Amino acid sequence: MRLGDAAAPVPPRVAKAYRSNGTLWQRLKTACPDLWDDYLGTDFIWSLAEGTLSDDAFRYHITQDYLYRIHYARAYALAAYKADTVANLRKFLVRILAVLDSERTLHRSLLESWGISMMELDAVPESSANVAYTCSILDCGAAGDLLDLHTALSPYVIGYAEVGRLLIGHERTVLEGNPFRGWIEQYAGDNYQEVAHAAETHLDEVAAGRLSEERFAQLARIFAQTVRLDIKFWETSFRVEI
Amino acid sequence: MRLGDAAAPVPPRVAKAYRSNGTLWQRLKTACPDLWDDYLGTDFIWSLAEGTLSDDAFRYHITQDYLYRIHYARAYALAAYKADTVANLRKFLVRILAVLDSERTLHRSLLESWGISMMELDAVPESSANVAYTCSILDCGAAGDLLDLHTALSPYVIGYAEVGRLLIGHERTVLEGNPFRGWIEQYAGDNYQEVAHAAETHLDEVAAGRLSEERFAQLARIFAQTVRLDIKFWETSFRVEI
Amino acid sequence: MRLGDAAAPVPPRVAKAYRSNGTLWQRLKTACPDLWDDYLGTDFIWSLAEGTLSDDAFRYHITQDYLYRIHYARAYALAAYKADTVANLRKFLVRILAVLDSERTLHRSLLESWGISMMELDAVPESSANVAYTCSILDCGAAGDLLDLHTALSPYVIGYAEVGRLLIGHERTVLEGNPFRGWIEQYAGDNYQEVAHAAETHLDEVAAGRLSEERFAQLARIFAQTVRLDIKFWETSFRVEI
Amino acid sequence: MRLGDAAAPVPPRVAKAYRSNGTLWQRLKTACPDLWDDYLGTDFIWSLAEGTLSDDAFRYHITQDYLYRIHYARAYALAAYKADTVANLRKFLVRILAVLDSERTLHRSLLESWGISMMELDAVPESSANVAYTCSILDCGAAGDLLDLHTALSPYVIGYAEVGRLLIGHERTVLEGNPFRGWIEQYAGDNYQEVAHAAETHLDEVAAGRLSEERFAQLARIFAQTVRLDIKFWETSFRVEI
Repeated sequence: MRLGDAAAPVPPRVAKAYRSNGTLWQRLKTACPDLWDDYLGTDFIWSLAEGTLSDDAFRYHITQDYLYRIHYARAYALAAYKADTVANLRKFLVRILAVLDSERTLHRSLLESWGISMMELDAVPESSANVAYTCSILDCGAAGDLLDLHTALSPYVIGYAEVGRLLIGHERTVLEGNPFRGWIEQYAGDNYQEVAHAAETHLDEVAAGRLSEERFAQLARIFAQTVRLDIKFWETSFRVEI
Repeated sequence: MRLGDAAAPVPPRVAKAYRSNGTLWQRLKTACPDLWDDYLGTDFIWSLAEGTLSDDAFRYHITQDYLYRIHYARAYALAAYKADTVANLRKFLVRILAVLDSERTLHRSLLESWGISMMELDAVPESSANVAYTCSILDCGAAGDLLDLHTALSPYVIGYAEVGRLLIGHERTVLEGNPFRGWIEQYAGDNYQEVAHAAETHLDEVAAGRLSEERFAQLARIFAQTVRLDIKFWETSFRVEI
Repeated sequence: MRLGDAAAPVPPRVAKAYRSNGTLWQRLKTACPDLWDDYLGTDFIWSLAEGTLSDDAFRYHITQDYLYRIHYARAYALAAYKADTVANLRKFLVRILAVLDSERTLHRSLLESWGISMMELDAVPESSANVAYTCSILDCGAAGDLLDLHTALSPYVIGYAEVGRLLIGHERTVLEGNPFRGWIEQYAGDNYQEVAHAAETHLDEVAAGRLSEERFAQLARIFAQTVRLDIKFWETSFRVEI
Repeated sequence: MRLGDAAAPVPPRVAKAYRSNGTLWQRLKTACPDLWDDYLGTDFIWSLAEGTLSDDAFRYHITQDYLYRIHYARAYALAAYKADTVANLRKFLVRILAVLDSERTLHRSLLESWGISMMELDAVPESSANVAYTCSILDCGAAGDLLDLHTALSPYVIGYAEVGRLLIGHERTVLEGNPFRGWIEQYAGDNYQEVAHAAETHLDEVAAGRLSEERFAQLARIFAQTVRLDIKFWETSFRVEI
């Protein structure tokens, strides 16, 4: 949760986004269009698409991403603790186990194919950009409510599916012989698309009866901060920076 | 936070209370009128008013209430941690120090006048009713947002001022020679009335832009639970029950 | 977490218990022998053993216990959020799902056999004793570390297995025609005994490198409070008290 | 709190540091000597000492540091919520108010002297390095216990006093005409030195009865991460990087 001495004035765009149609996810993106363009335009994802990312950068990214998912699982555990119905509590748990099981499998196979051992992983410190991204989400969730937490999680959970769809169908993308094809196909695949679609629906359920122009402006600030930190996370991966 | 397998249907009264005028505090009471009547009608407070409470019961109550305030201070510290502006963070801190300083002074003088030593206090376990009351508030605050926390705190912070006003002006109340006159005058006094008035205003500020019929129904459930646990806290004091 | 103005002096028994052999669970019981005798001697469990508990009291208990397990699942989600290794995080999750799935199945069958509908359950408020028990555990976990949380959980997780073993082999127990036989056999059964045994081992793992006489005394206070609140939970069930 | 699939092996130096004499603060530094040298050797602090830091970098740093203190106050509020004695709870509160009052006064005067308006401050986003630093501390505190939290806070609370002492007496330092002299003198001054000394003593009090070689190794990891993130915070200030 970000604090300021005074509430930042709500920019006109946020008010418009609040009243616009669509899911909360769509309205959050509409509230910070330039930032969202930056998110979809980072050099990191396009060098994945074109297959030009350096091996070092990808090794670095996979390693950091592996560490990231652990906190992502902790964030869902926090959501389960904060759940107000048993059905939601169970939903979060199943989601975490899916993360830990299937995505870990993917990571482990990626890590193995790149020759990164578990022992090596344990020796890697989380990058500052990684800590900023994960701990910011966890702080939103610890200090705020479920809606704050799910908003903070959305750029990863839902956003990566959008990246996957964008890349898989784009003319700049080279799948043939692309060493990062597995990454692209994972997020573009039906499996992940369904996860993201369910998360988008769930975000609207959590928001039901909790939205107002003022609350939306607060959520838009959380969203913008997480998007900004996600871009930074990618950028530092690109530069192999701790 | 209370969980159920399904959301309990919102009773018609809650919907009406949501749309009714007045502060959130007034609307929360309107949503559970019978419970609020019970709160204002407990044998405990009327035996204070009539000066008929047994010494043992009052000793017991003061001791438990002393232990209670510690968690009340922790709840305000939790609110400070969750504050979204520096102004609010500072407001909560000043409030806690006021609790710890002035109310402690009162308690210490009450405790001394009743011959209860600090050493005796440390040996007294918190009653089950006390733990239920305080930990329920802390759980609302840890799992929910600031609005959940302040709603859970309101029956004590604002409610005791209403009890004070009711008692000081009531024909059943006997102030002359009443050994509990100090208690009544504390909560009826300008000092506490101002604290309660500020809390009622602050509750509306926290709620601004966060209320809807659905959210109000959730807050009404938190409010009803805390009122119920506060009544229980008084009742067990009356029965000197751990 | 219980607060006092001064640290309560550590009674000699606690120091002895700290140095005694055995698991942490065994040492915690040794530190409060009278309270533990009370726990194993409540009228509630012996009227279950003898089959003399009233139908109303059992209906009440099952209903409250059903509500209790939800917070118990939240407590494990909190443990998962606080886990310091992925292996532990996963362990807690699997444990919660087991709680929600298998124990719920048991509860649902008990509830059905006693004619208690889900709709009825949602209308039942948690008793003050229930809230005290669950929210006290959750507060220990939110304010303290994993060791505080697992210590607070132990009277239920490990203690009920001890009750089960005690009852199933006791001469006072009447299994034949006992309407509560299912309850006794559940907790005495291999399945639950293994859960409890694993929890006892896990408590020692969490405590490894964190115990000292001072820390043990703090844990002994948490343990004693939870045992006291568990006894109260049973007693109020016995009296069908909200 | 940082997670790994397996506990990282405790390096020999940590074991030695655990057994060495001195306060916990001294032993934590001894456990990561190279990192601590990096901390005391950042270009940022030496360019302050020599008066060569660019105006832009200092403006940037003061602005980010101003935002940082807000979370630092939240961290102390979290400590107050987790306090196990009233005396500690009060100690944390007084500390926060001191932070908010005196340091804010300093910051405001620095900000004014550099022509940075409050409105400008509210428009500045927290840098990724800033979020990493503050949210990592808050996450340690939310997921761990008071000892984890105070360990995470120590590089700032106690470390800046060491930087102040180092700079004020060093031959490289130029006080005459140094535009950053106020900064150096603040942290080298008696006032801040006493704050740091009290924090070092308090850290030992919190650790009393909670240290073992295993626990020390965990604290050393928290310490190392925070030191690393603090260095990064300085470095990005130096580069004026969001």
